[in-house]
Amino acid sequence: MKPIAFLPVVVAAAVGVAACLAHATGQAGEAASPIYGVTLPPGYRDWRLISVTHEEGNFNQLRAQLGNDAAIKAYREGKLPFPDGAIIVALHWNRVPSDEDNKVFGRVQAFVAGSSANIQVMVKDSKKFAATGGWGFADFRDGKPSDETMHKTCFSCHEPAKDRDFVFTRYAP
Amino acid sequence: MKPIAFLPVVVAAAVGVAACLAHATGQAGEAASPIYGVTLPPGYRDWRLISVTHEEGNFNQLRAQLGNDAAIKAYREGKLPFPDGAIIVALHWNRVPSDEDNKVFGRVQAFVAGSSANIQVMVKDSKKFAATGGWGFADFRDGKPSDETMHKTCFSCHEPAKDRDFVFTRYAP
Repeated sequence: MKPIAFLPVVVAAAVGVAACLAHATGQAGEAASPIYGVTLPPGYRDWRLISVTHEEGNFNQLRAQLGNDAAIKAYREGKLPFPDGAIIVALHWNRVPSDEDNKVFGRVQAFVAGSSANIQVMVKDSKKFAATGGWGFADFRDGKPSDETMHKTCFSCHEPAKDRDFVFTRYAP
Repeated sequence: MKPIAFLPVVVAAAVGVAACLAHATGQAGEAASPIYGVTLPPGYRDWRLISVTHEEGNFNQLRAQLGNDAAIKAYREGKLPFPDGAIIVALHWNRVPSDEDNKVFGRVQAFVAGSSANIQVMVKDSKKFAATGGWGFADFRDGKPSDETMHKTCFSCHEPAKDRDFVFTRYAP
């Protein structure tokens, strides 16, 4: 991770995105991410499944990545980069043991999605977000966007996945 | 788990289901589960997400449960028992480390869905499957149904979840 190296890029993105905020945020009062102005897309919970993740370490989370039609189509056709309009939403839940499931097995081995930890969004717009690989990012906790400091880390963390258009998640069979 | 205690029930179901097999399997040559005659429903990979699971122990799997419209509607309305026609499909993947993701964090902490281990199906038909809580079961590996011995364990394992209509999975926020 080299967040410092990407700061100029992020600042440039912030300047470029500022003019688009009114459009990107939709209706007044809708919560948008700092820097990118990305909102939680309506109906995302009904989107199709891309894959799932288990994060240990400081997270202890189970995650699911969902995609809108444009994202799913690109995944299935194996096309990169993702087209403008593609959106990926990652639901991050706190990982909790399943008491009912564990009773059946007679030991603690099953863990399920508990409460929501946060929800992250990637929106592809190659012009608007040209300075950050064509992606606009957002992180929400309890429906509210996280602060600017947190959002400055989005692109730098995704940068190692440049060969896959900055997207870590692969489509699960 | 008391599989022995449920054997008479399963056998009764097998007798009752036999006459329905032609209908349940759909087109000739379509693979159906023994005992229940349940097939892999077309388009299930596009269904909406119910929740995700991490199974340790002998499994080492990540799982996602998807539901057809009838199942999702029942979940969201909190209605039990599930209506006839509800179908839940559980995708079980081998859990593998994500090299790309771990490089970012500098340690092994991220695991993703690898190859498919198996896919399980629950179909609600309160009359056809009356002897097994109204549910017909199926387990597929590489697209082929597992054997009868395996399918005799389905209902007995789900029986402890009787208060939730024999379904372990809760809807994730």
